[in-house]
Amino acid sequence: MPLDALLTNGRLADGRRVDIGIAGGRIATLGEDAPPSNSVPCLDLAGDLVLPGLVDGHMHLDKTLTGLPWMDHAAGPTRMSRIETDKTILPYLPLSTEERAGHLIRDCVARGTAHMRSHVDIDLESRLAKLHGVLAARERHRDRVGLQIVAFPQSGVMRCPGVLDLLDQAVRAGADLVGGIDPLEIDRDPKGQLDGIFAIAARHGVGLDIHLHEPGEMGLFNVHEICARTRALGLAGKVTISHGFCLGQVTERAAGAAAELMAAAGVALVTHGAGGLALPPIEMLRAAGVLVFAGNDDIRDTWSPYGTGDLLERASIVGWKADFRRDAQVETAFDLVSAAGAKALGVADYGIAIGAPATFFTIAASGVAEAVAVHAPRKLVLFDGRLVARDGAALPEPLTVAAAVR
Amino acid sequence: MPLDALLTNGRLADGRRVDIGIAGGRIATLGEDAPPSNSVPCLDLAGDLVLPGLVDGHMHLDKTLTGLPWMDHAAGPTRMSRIETDKTILPYLPLSTEERAGHLIRDCVARGTAHMRSHVDIDLESRLAKLHGVLAARERHRDRVGLQIVAFPQSGVMRCPGVLDLLDQAVRAGADLVGGIDPLEIDRDPKGQLDGIFAIAARHGVGLDIHLHEPGEMGLFNVHEICARTRALGLAGKVTISHGFCLGQVTERAAGAAAELMAAAGVALVTHGAGGLALPPIEMLRAAGVLVFAGNDDIRDTWSPYGTGDLLERASIVGWKADFRRDAQVETAFDLVSAAGAKALGVADYGIAIGAPATFFTIAASGVAEAVAVHAPRKLVLFDGRLVARDGAALPEPLTVAAAVR
Repeated sequence: MPLDALLTNGRLADGRRVDIGIAGGRIATLGEDAPPSNSVPCLDLAGDLVLPGLVDGHMHLDKTLTGLPWMDHAAGPTRMSRIETDKTILPYLPLSTEERAGHLIRDCVARGTAHMRSHVDIDLESRLAKLHGVLAARERHRDRVGLQIVAFPQSGVMRCPGVLDLLDQAVRAGADLVGGIDPLEIDRDPKGQLDGIFAIAARHGVGLDIHLHEPGEMGLFNVHEICARTRALGLAGKVTISHGFCLGQVTERAAGAAAELMAAAGVALVTHGAGGLALPPIEMLRAAGVLVFAGNDDIRDTWSPYGTGDLLERASIVGWKADFRRDAQVETAFDLVSAAGAKALGVADYGIAIGAPATFFTIAASGVAEAVAVHAPRKLVLFDGRLVARDGAALPEPLTVAAAVR
Repeated sequence: MPLDALLTNGRLADGRRVDIGIAGGRIATLGEDAPPSNSVPCLDLAGDLVLPGLVDGHMHLDKTLTGLPWMDHAAGPTRMSRIETDKTILPYLPLSTEERAGHLIRDCVARGTAHMRSHVDIDLESRLAKLHGVLAARERHRDRVGLQIVAFPQSGVMRCPGVLDLLDQAVRAGADLVGGIDPLEIDRDPKGQLDGIFAIAARHGVGLDIHLHEPGEMGLFNVHEICARTRALGLAGKVTISHGFCLGQVTERAAGAAAELMAAAGVALVTHGAGGLALPPIEMLRAAGVLVFAGNDDIRDTWSPYGTGDLLERASIVGWKADFRRDAQVETAFDLVSAAGAKALGVADYGIAIGAPATFFTIAASGVAEAVAVHAPRKLVLFDGRLVARDGAALPEPLTVAAAVR
């Protein structure tokens, strides 16, 4: 196949200098001896580092205020206040869910994100409205980012009769996974919630991603319950625990036992760095065989004013909190927002290799550790062979490399 | 006095639209009705937010690797390994202390920092060599940043006989404060170290800034010892505890008692966000009357690969860890890296007011909360009326506004 474009003089994470040939949206050639040709549009990367498109494993696209003038945080200091306050704010914003989600997607694309998993609230008041908004944003941006959607019962399941049926409807309407939340703290009925959401996942053959903020031994109880159901239903590799703060709060021995259980059951963990709480022990979990990945969680939304959408900045925060100082450890922090996330999301052909989608970004950095620590602006961001952002700003529409160099 | 320059169409943190007239390096006029003049060089701020120059309350200019090619972190996982490894690395780098400190100062200036407090290692091996390097960097950059230097006994005091004398020499050579470190963990002799360093401070009439990493009740013991000596020697307002992780680790009651003691003694606390450890309770400490401020601590140095030098990013990390969500709380995070830091460092005439030094920066943001949360690049950075950085990059030399608009 003739090349559509050639990016010359890039540098891979392993130090190799490469020219990257693109054809049909994929990497067609990758080496130091690209076929010389006068007819192929060329872009000189000037030695910049080329890294695979980043993977945001935990987002809330439906809650963001991105695209709106700045607003003061309205909720009180508790999680339940944030849940209730959302219902008084989100439906009345001057931008729709689709519009706000679109603004945030483009902000994240500008920072090199290529794949996302977003939770979307499903509750008795808004029913599937937010899902439809995020589905529309996904469709609108399908040539810029891959987006996986979790039908997320933010307000609870058993305390809101009817939500289980809405979650089932959400999966039929296009959600990729079923969510859950704090079966003890929010629902006071762990058996009811977990039996209910696992039944929906099993019925549709989809995965689960369950928010677990519960502290210490309370949270650990539900880690055990989630692992037991994952094994019983043969869902290994399809279940994620979001946050899992408890794993950073119990004794090392109890966390170690939970890690063994999660690894054996095929239950993954996604973290955003745990805010003011103890971070789950990432290296211990990974050594035990648990798939650990990371995401931004709140990005300027009704839950938090913080978050820029930059996964390299997020990796630097996670690495700082995890006391990752050596390059190999900082590279682990990068893995959390790249390959590990891609594995969790089931991204096909992830990485920079011949035959893989031409989905990567370039940055001025000597290597992965510096890219994470300094998180300089992304120079070029490509998705499926087309340029979607440049010099830190999203393009209005994706451009072929040929059009970009013209 | 005739104006040297006029910056039009700026916006202050309180929302006021202002024109800022500069004369003799100071703010000469500040209002909506600047005197029209054809002869004054004008710069249009286009509605950007104008904030006072940032204050980095805790740095280690002598340890930075800024300006060098990226290096893997070399030390082991303990603080003592980092202390010992520094002695095998820092003297043999291809850039001098002065050069590396200069690179970092300019990086920070580019991000809006106007005042710094840097610790500089004083030990038996390097004696005053690092101090002389940082003093030279201070002199070289005196028209770009204010720099306060702490003579810091990184390797210990009582365990290294001769260091007390070196600290005394350091103050005579130009250090502004005397440092200390973990009197129990490092020196195993709290009375010896604290009596020794307080005697030097009292003798020279300078302040102290003491690193306290010690956990829980061990750290709290030294908080009490430091407060007692501060009161006994009449040093209220001149003593800082750096880190004070223990204040986030003990019971709320014990931390509250320590806060009362610190407030009564006039002992301040500086935090960098506490990494993977619990953050000291910032709001409680401030409510008790303790002066709390913040700094970046390590910025790409032999102790940590992280840190960009951006104090707005630092404030966002501290605010995120402190669970500051409301604008007023995010503004507290900003206060830690601005006015509170200026008070701790004794910066004269800090802030944006007529008669104050024209030391401020501009940023595209609706207000302080957005500036912290998004930490967009700084557009213009001025120090004493001259432009020192523009669009995120330090200028080679400071420019008058007249020269910049020419």
